[in-house]
Amino acid sequence: MAKRNLYLKTTPVEEAGEKYMQALEEAGCLKPQTEMTDTYESLGRITVEPVFAKCCSPLFNAAAMDGIAVKSTETAGASEERPLTLEPGTEYKIIDTGDPIRAPFDAVVMAEDVTEEVGSDRVMITRSVPGWQHVRPIGEDIAAGEMLLPSHHRIRPVDIGVLLAGGILSLKAFKKPQVSIIPTGTEIIMPHENPAEGDIIDSNSGMFAAMVAEAGGIPHRCGIVPDDYEQIKKTVLREIKNSDMVIINAGSSAGTEDYTVHVLREIGDVIIHGVAMKPGKPVILAIVQGKPVIGLPGYPVSAYLAFENFVEPVLQKISGSNRGSRNTARKTVKAVLSKRIVSSLKHREYVRVKVGKVGDKFVCAPLARGAGAAMSLVRADGFCVIPQESEGFEAGETVDVELYTDIAQIENTLVSIGSHDMIIDVMNDMMAERFPGMNLSGTHVGSMGGLMALSRGETVIAPTHLLDEETGEYNISYIEKIFPGEKMALIKGVDRIQGIMVKKDNPLNIKGVEDLTRARYVNRQRGAGTRVLLDYKLKQAGITPDMINGYDKEAATHMAVAALVASEEIDAGMGIKPAADAMGLDFIEVGTEEYDFAIRQENLELPQVKAFRQILQSEEFHEKLEKMGGYGWHQAGRIVMIKG
Amino acid sequence: MAKRNLYLKTTPVEEAGEKYMQALEEAGCLKPQTEMTDTYESLGRITVEPVFAKCCSPLFNAAAMDGIAVKSTETAGASEERPLTLEPGTEYKIIDTGDPIRAPFDAVVMAEDVTEEVGSDRVMITRSVPGWQHVRPIGEDIAAGEMLLPSHHRIRPVDIGVLLAGGILSLKAFKKPQVSIIPTGTEIIMPHENPAEGDIIDSNSGMFAAMVAEAGGIPHRCGIVPDDYEQIKKTVLREIKNSDMVIINAGSSAGTEDYTVHVLREIGDVIIHGVAMKPGKPVILAIVQGKPVIGLPGYPVSAYLAFENFVEPVLQKISGSNRGSRNTARKTVKAVLSKRIVSSLKHREYVRVKVGKVGDKFVCAPLARGAGAAMSLVRADGFCVIPQESEGFEAGETVDVELYTDIAQIENTLVSIGSHDMIIDVMNDMMAERFPGMNLSGTHVGSMGGLMALSRGETVIAPTHLLDEETGEYNISYIEKIFPGEKMALIKGVDRIQGIMVKKDNPLNIKGVEDLTRARYVNRQRGAGTRVLLDYKLKQAGITPDMINGYDKEAATHMAVAALVASEEIDAGMGIKPAADAMGLDFIEVGTEEYDFAIRQENLELPQVKAFRQILQSEEFHEKLEKMGGYGWHQAGRIVMIKG
Repeated sequence: MAKRNLYLKTTPVEEAGEKYMQALEEAGCLKPQTEMTDTYESLGRITVEPVFAKCCSPLFNAAAMDGIAVKSTETAGASEERPLTLEPGTEYKIIDTGDPIRAPFDAVVMAEDVTEEVGSDRVMITRSVPGWQHVRPIGEDIAAGEMLLPSHHRIRPVDIGVLLAGGILSLKAFKKPQVSIIPTGTEIIMPHENPAEGDIIDSNSGMFAAMVAEAGGIPHRCGIVPDDYEQIKKTVLREIKNSDMVIINAGSSAGTEDYTVHVLREIGDVIIHGVAMKPGKPVILAIVQGKPVIGLPGYPVSAYLAFENFVEPVLQKISGSNRGSRNTARKTVKAVLSKRIVSSLKHREYVRVKVGKVGDKFVCAPLARGAGAAMSLVRADGFCVIPQESEGFEAGETVDVELYTDIAQIENTLVSIGSHDMIIDVMNDMMAERFPGMNLSGTHVGSMGGLMALSRGETVIAPTHLLDEETGEYNISYIEKIFPGEKMALIKGVDRIQGIMVKKDNPLNIKGVEDLTRARYVNRQRGAGTRVLLDYKLKQAGITPDMINGYDKEAATHMAVAALVASEEIDAGMGIKPAADAMGLDFIEVGTEEYDFAIRQENLELPQVKAFRQILQSEEFHEKLEKMGGYGWHQAGRIVMIKG
Repeated sequence: MAKRNLYLKTTPVEEAGEKYMQALEEAGCLKPQTEMTDTYESLGRITVEPVFAKCCSPLFNAAAMDGIAVKSTETAGASEERPLTLEPGTEYKIIDTGDPIRAPFDAVVMAEDVTEEVGSDRVMITRSVPGWQHVRPIGEDIAAGEMLLPSHHRIRPVDIGVLLAGGILSLKAFKKPQVSIIPTGTEIIMPHENPAEGDIIDSNSGMFAAMVAEAGGIPHRCGIVPDDYEQIKKTVLREIKNSDMVIINAGSSAGTEDYTVHVLREIGDVIIHGVAMKPGKPVILAIVQGKPVIGLPGYPVSAYLAFENFVEPVLQKISGSNRGSRNTARKTVKAVLSKRIVSSLKHREYVRVKVGKVGDKFVCAPLARGAGAAMSLVRADGFCVIPQESEGFEAGETVDVELYTDIAQIENTLVSIGSHDMIIDVMNDMMAERFPGMNLSGTHVGSMGGLMALSRGETVIAPTHLLDEETGEYNISYIEKIFPGEKMALIKGVDRIQGIMVKKDNPLNIKGVEDLTRARYVNRQRGAGTRVLLDYKLKQAGITPDMINGYDKEAATHMAVAALVASEEIDAGMGIKPAADAMGLDFIEVGTEEYDFAIRQENLELPQVKAFRQILQSEEFHEKLEKMGGYGWHQAGRIVMIKG
């Protein structure tokens, strides 16, 4: 068997960062470059040195009001009883706001306080005026030589305004760092609409390029380099010439084809290989020819977290910024964990979570943990750090969550935990459209998981479709049993046709549940309403789980089941028709079920819940359901009160 | 006298905004346009419709670990006592993380759990494995047909990652609105390093262009249009053709040359003219040929606030964004006001403030109130809104402040209120350089104002240079009098040479304070140490204030005094040598004074104060003082304890 480097010795996260920054400092890598930049183009740029005004603003004594300019000393003694008459030209002059006030004039009387003498050009005023009344003296706002902006200041629109007013047409700014991004991997291909089996799309380069841009750098995406020692080495050496920093993606672990660390050891210094964080372990922090070179792992979540923790702080430094990286700017809230998290003592783990507010407390539910779960980053409202020395947290514990999402948005979110259906995504999209600022946050843990979360106060609504085998009724009896004596309700949702998804043209001729003994099956997770329905039907047909090949294989959503049935490995799985249609599968109806939303009566009046019901009852929503197929909506949005 | 439209009838702020948005809605102005955009270029763009994945991720059942692929069903019964031997090719296959797991294989055993048989290619495992162990099934992260992003979603780097992974190479996004910016005014010139007297630099266009870019639009700055009805009309009609929105700057009030509203009334509909806000009153909200046209006032602060309140919400809508404008995203804190604010009942006023934290409370000090005080926007940490129906707030009252600056940065700020010197700016700049994240926040209210603020707990340090006429000593006796019995201290600062600034070559032959009776003078504000020194010297010379022409004219800083002495209107003013040097003035020494920092002993150990003292004692700082001239630093940073 080919030799592997089985064990990656890992360094704790903070220590790795500090060691690397120190090594970069000592190697002189962190000196940012500078360039002149046009003031008009300087938004977001960072000043290298303090900027001093070249000219004053106002440039001259200027009228602050519309009216007349007068000589202040000559107005002494004017009053209502003894108004002062002034001659045009020698004693007063009409001026508008902003006009220069020149000697001998040195004050302004507002137009409203001036009376015209009938039949002449003379005017009358009824009060004496002090010197510089309603006059903005030279330099009142900006004096030539005054410091307008300090160094290391990130230029905002208001700064551009004063630079221009102060006569500064260009200024020295820190150069934006050039960052090369090198994707590696023989099996990696450029993003493609129809990738072939075995291909892995390079999605990280595009993500990194955007992260570099957000951090104030200029990204350069390179072509994909295969798993070849010499080619990787050549590419790094080429990019190092013209860039300030190089990122190499994938090939950074200890697998048979992970050459990156060996290349970097040959052409430079590897300061750190392996960090005690999960996801993100196989990070390489190196210096080559006086420039930072970082190897990031291939899995998207690992790549993202490693970029944030190690690439960004370096980028901040070499871009001349001295504000903290985005991590330090995030808000942290305390939230109640709705599901147990178990973690190893080998590393610090970053668990992505959805966050909601139920009543006056924040609650959070962990998303998919895997390093490849890119959608967990898209859906995450924040993350919970499990320190290296901790083995995890129990459900119900209060944890610290660092937020990606604004607290204001979280407070406007309708929290939903329970059974998955595509209509959750559709309703979230409609909410964003019709109720700007509100959104629907769905965590998919199956019907039972949802009702449990509801009982613990961790969700507002719980989508559920649980069949009571004895009564043949849906949902109500479960709610009565789980919430005895409590004031509950059911917001009616949709009827859904459940069935068996099979390959196109049904090659195994599956007619019903009894035929599943002939198929390679994929199940749903425990507690999923679909799985409960399967068990019911199997029982009716006298079939036991061990008679179904693949009963123990689990997929988390209808779409995932459909994707698997469309693949070579699986022949059948239960789910809803729209998922089957999306993958071009055949569909054998098994029955209709009711997909509803359990809720506590006290929450029925929440604005988000009212918005939710409005959407359920809207014609637009019904049209979408019609288009998707397999749904009935005649009761959608209706409230059924349940006495526990 | 030329006819003026003296009175601008004003509408309350919220009502003006709502009326305008409603009018725009009814005129069909708020429908954003769309275009296809390359996924790689889509950072920050907003989705028009939900985006569904085209392909799965993973695309195939993929190994989640390095190791061997096996057939799960054939591993039943394997144990430590009865290890299972597997043949290469038929019974196992070496795989790396990410490799496809194809039939007949359906599970992975980690490399660490595999033992090689000595002298052959066979391997042994000691545990049975369930189906899909360490396998990431097809579609586990993204299933084809699944919704990746909802509509009205602003694309982030993680979104680009999943779009690419899901096979989406381009998507429909809202077009960035094109916004024309038309500066008007016969006296306005393009920004220039050496403007002539009477010129007013157009600094607003550059600021607006940056604000448009920040709000997601594409700005077009037009050439300056003079105060000419026909030319303004022609320019607006020309720009309306190719832009989605037009901003006209200046000429928006009721002065003799304010044509904008008349032009817009002719070619379109003026919905609002005049808003009850200060600064910002002369705003025009109009619709021309189905597009929004907004007239913004000429003064920079008015322009900025009017842009935020009226241009931005429209821009948000026509760019397809449905998040709130920047106002709604701001944090608000409660802060104690250090200085009385008086406001009229005619309008809502936006008072810019500096904010600091002293002990555990936030304190705020108002900045210059004028509509032309652009530097007040640069220096502001936030603003305090004085509602239309309020007449203001008293010093010591707690007010709501909407923050521009991060709370974290405010908490890292050393608050300084008191006498102004250029070294405050220099030290702030050095703090930004040496202590990233920290800064020095200086509010200039004169020495007495600073000590008063210190006594009320509204500042940490108070720069002061107050001469005790009886003892000839500086600062200490004032602190003893104002803080009897309290544990105070003085951080020694610098010696400063004070003197009289006069024009180059001293045309009036000023030799000392006694000669000021022959000059046009400009004074400093009450409570300023420089004014106290002048009064002392005048008293010594037997001169009374009324003998000095201009004793009642006040400038707020040394630089402002210098700028005035350099102008035609003023002959002399007191201040420090570096300010005179900056404007090329002659300087007649009057005496040396001590410029120190009063502080409570309990605050001496704050990190910001320690950093401050380090800077005072640093060689770099002393070199800068040497260069500026007129300073002595032999005691800088030393602490003098004062028993009250």
